Amino acid sequence: MALFMLGKVQRAASLCRPHIRSCRAYRITPQLVDDLRTLVGDCNISTANAVREQHGRDESMHSCQPPDVVIWPQNVEQVSKVASLCYTHNIPIIPFGTGTGLEGGVSALKGGVCFDLTRMDKILNLNTDDFYVTVEPGVTRKTLNAYLRDSGLWFPVDPGADASLCGMVATSASGTNAVRYGTMRDNVINLEVVLPDGRVLCTAGKDRSFRKTSAGYNLTSLFVGSEGTLGIITKATLRLYGVPEATVAAVCAFPSVQAAVDSTVQILQCGIPIARIEFLDDVMINACNKYNDLGYPVLPTLFLEFHGSENGVNEQVQQAAEITQLNGGSDFTWATDQEQRNKLWTARHNAWYAALALRPGCRGYSTDVCVPISKLPQIIVETKEDLITSRLTGPIAGHVGDGNFHCIMVLDLNDKEEVRKVKEFTDRLAR
Amino acid sequence: MALFMLGKVQRAASLCRPHIRSCRAYRITPQLVDDLRTLVGDCNISTANAVREQHGRDESMHSCQPPDVVIWPQNVEQVSKVASLCYTHNIPIIPFGTGTGLEGGVSALKGGVCFDLTRMDKILNLNTDDFYVTVEPGVTRKTLNAYLRDSGLWFPVDPGADASLCGMVATSASGTNAVRYGTMRDNVINLEVVLPDGRVLCTAGKDRSFRKTSAGYNLTSLFVGSEGTLGIITKATLRLYGVPEATVAAVCAFPSVQAAVDSTVQILQCGIPIARIEFLDDVMINACNKYNDLGYPVLPTLFLEFHGSENGVNEQVQQAAEITQLNGGSDFTWATDQEQRNKLWTARHNAWYAALALRPGCRGYSTDVCVPISKLPQIIVETKEDLITSRLTGPIAGHVGDGNFHCIMVLDLNDKEEVRKVKEFTDRLAR
Repeated sequence: MALFMLGKVQRAASLCRPHIRSCRAYRITPQLVDDLRTLVGDCNISTANAVREQHGRDESMHSCQPPDVVIWPQNVEQVSKVASLCYTHNIPIIPFGTGTGLEGGVSALKGGVCFDLTRMDKILNLNTDDFYVTVEPGVTRKTLNAYLRDSGLWFPVDPGADASLCGMVATSASGTNAVRYGTMRDNVINLEVVLPDGRVLCTAGKDRSFRKTSAGYNLTSLFVGSEGTLGIITKATLRLYGVPEATVAAVCAFPSVQAAVDSTVQILQCGIPIARIEFLDDVMINACNKYNDLGYPVLPTLFLEFHGSENGVNEQVQQAAEITQLNGGSDFTWATDQEQRNKLWTARHNAWYAALALRPGCRGYSTDVCVPISKLPQIIVETKEDLITSRLTGPIAGHVGDGNFHCIMVLDLNDKEEVRKVKEFTDRLAR
Repeated sequence: MALFMLGKVQRAASLCRPHIRSCRAYRITPQLVDDLRTLVGDCNISTANAVREQHGRDESMHSCQPPDVVIWPQNVEQVSKVASLCYTHNIPIIPFGTGTGLEGGVSALKGGVCFDLTRMDKILNLNTDDFYVTVEPGVTRKTLNAYLRDSGLWFPVDPGADASLCGMVATSASGTNAVRYGTMRDNVINLEVVLPDGRVLCTAGKDRSFRKTSAGYNLTSLFVGSEGTLGIITKATLRLYGVPEATVAAVCAFPSVQAAVDSTVQILQCGIPIARIEFLDDVMINACNKYNDLGYPVLPTLFLEFHGSENGVNEQVQQAAEITQLNGGSDFTWATDQEQRNKLWTARHNAWYAALALRPGCRGYSTDVCVPISKLPQIIVETKEDLITSRLTGPIAGHVGDGNFHCIMVLDLNDKEEVRKVKEFTDRLAR
């Protein structure tokens, strides 16, 4: 499926994992596997086919590229020692979190040793005064928020999947809350990283957790979004937020894509501090209705969420409602209690699976387009028209507040004509 | 004054400007000056002593380290060509903005060519839909905001001085608004940079101005705060904000340092989206009163500013007032109209000059301490006690919302005993 490697795999390959670039021929000898076993322990290494294949792909359509060996390090010392050993023998190393990526970042393009980091899963140094916490790479987003439940704090970045937080750092994850709380880029304070040769680096200095620092280069941001190409993240110190006093979610349907996206742009330009604003087109809403057994009108739709004080939220809702009504939007359907809100956002989060369920047996390929917010209406309208003309199944969902939307292509890989059409479509979209 | 090079000069030197590290002996020959003159034009080059000395220091107490030549490039092509020429001849290059720094970043430690960028002063690509603008390095903070006045937008980062925006990028400037709008780090979208060898790089790609991007390494953040050591910034694309509907500033005096700083921590922990919160101790208030002819009570004081909708601001003010009263703070003294607010913040911004005016003929040395916010009260109280015990003049002012405070040491450089005591004090503070 090299055809479709428009995403991060291709970038990662062209940026070159340090080991791939200069990759001389290497061999994983029985001796080397023994050395690895000595380093991580008998129960923390596998060369079984099933395990390797499980670690050679994520949830995307990219074909499986299994590593030669999978290890489960227990601590940073082991990560460092294994990295150093691989460095000496010119063996590629690939960090692996939850495997929930959608862009093939875990593919072991040239084989090598996969570091499954799920067994390093401690939550360290929760500081409720200064609003930060440190997590090991096995800690997922949902695990952290469950742990924080009684502290009055939460970590807002939410890409949908229950991804590992360090994986979210590596991929610079965005998500539904980005419009208010930013992406991972804005919420990482410090990282402990094992460099390709095994050296351990703290990007902001050891034990630093200050909001401002001006000493030295900003290495933290360099590692955020580096997709595992610069080193293996073994600890992340993250910024936390106070749980808002009031949270209200609403759903609003529109007569056209243009009206929905125009509303988004106007809400943002008015400076309403909205927490989430997500666009789903009619095809996507239809898929979500079917998959989640819901009954939203099959129209271009916005999912919105407001955070703040009681009064603050009321004011935000009122301002947003004025804008959506001017654009012909329906009255808001409310979700005020936690359960209703969960149902709503679960529907949004399941969009990927809902899209796939439209055509059982087909595979999905997600495009990821970022544009200036003012250009969004035009581009989404054009994309939609293109999909209809090309007779392709591509529901659209977007973190529109961030100028970002996904077109989820659902296609039959055995249908060569369809594969060609999707390729042409994604090329047009990228342009 | 090598004694006091605790700040950025020392760091810059140890990180090494690319040319300084490998600096073989170089000579600025008449031929080279002629070559430079050909590149930038007759009116844009000087080797006059007065000009060189003016470019060898900023507003700090660091002694003057003049460059050999000063040039005023007119465009990025000239910057690139001169950089390339210097690279070939192993000559250090030093970018120069407004010279308003307080940490000696412009000192030409080994001589070389100083690039005075004030004549590249165009404002480009103001986009009022997507809230960004591109500026050349000669554009200052105040010039940009004057330019934006009728657009309903503004650029909030405000370190006090009317610094050049690209200089603020290079030094990762913070300031009074950081608690709400972040520092430069959070507000730079793209940079055009001339690398030491003359190559021109756009850190986020050419013409990129999206809020989210996940392609390639985050080079923008690497250059923010790089202090001119990685290249010369020739264009910066900055994020803008809508001018808030309502703005209210207030002043509140406290019986003790502890009470003032505790109030700050509590206001932040309650999640009140305050725009500015600045601490000034009694010595600083006294200096500001004298310098600006004001009559604030000589007590530990907070300057606060609230931005938002009319209702939103009222709610914030009410919540903040409850907290300050619980800590024994005075009633708020209000500054609602623009003129009063300007007077208030001018007093804060002039703190440096006000401090120097306490002891005419003396020089100032500013420490810059960043700590976790929860540790602020204890550290400021201890610092204050230390100053009194050591009998030193060191008014304290701080962007306390950001965990950041400055202790402005005013000292007589001819008094060896005092210089020694200040050195010992700053060493203790740094620890």
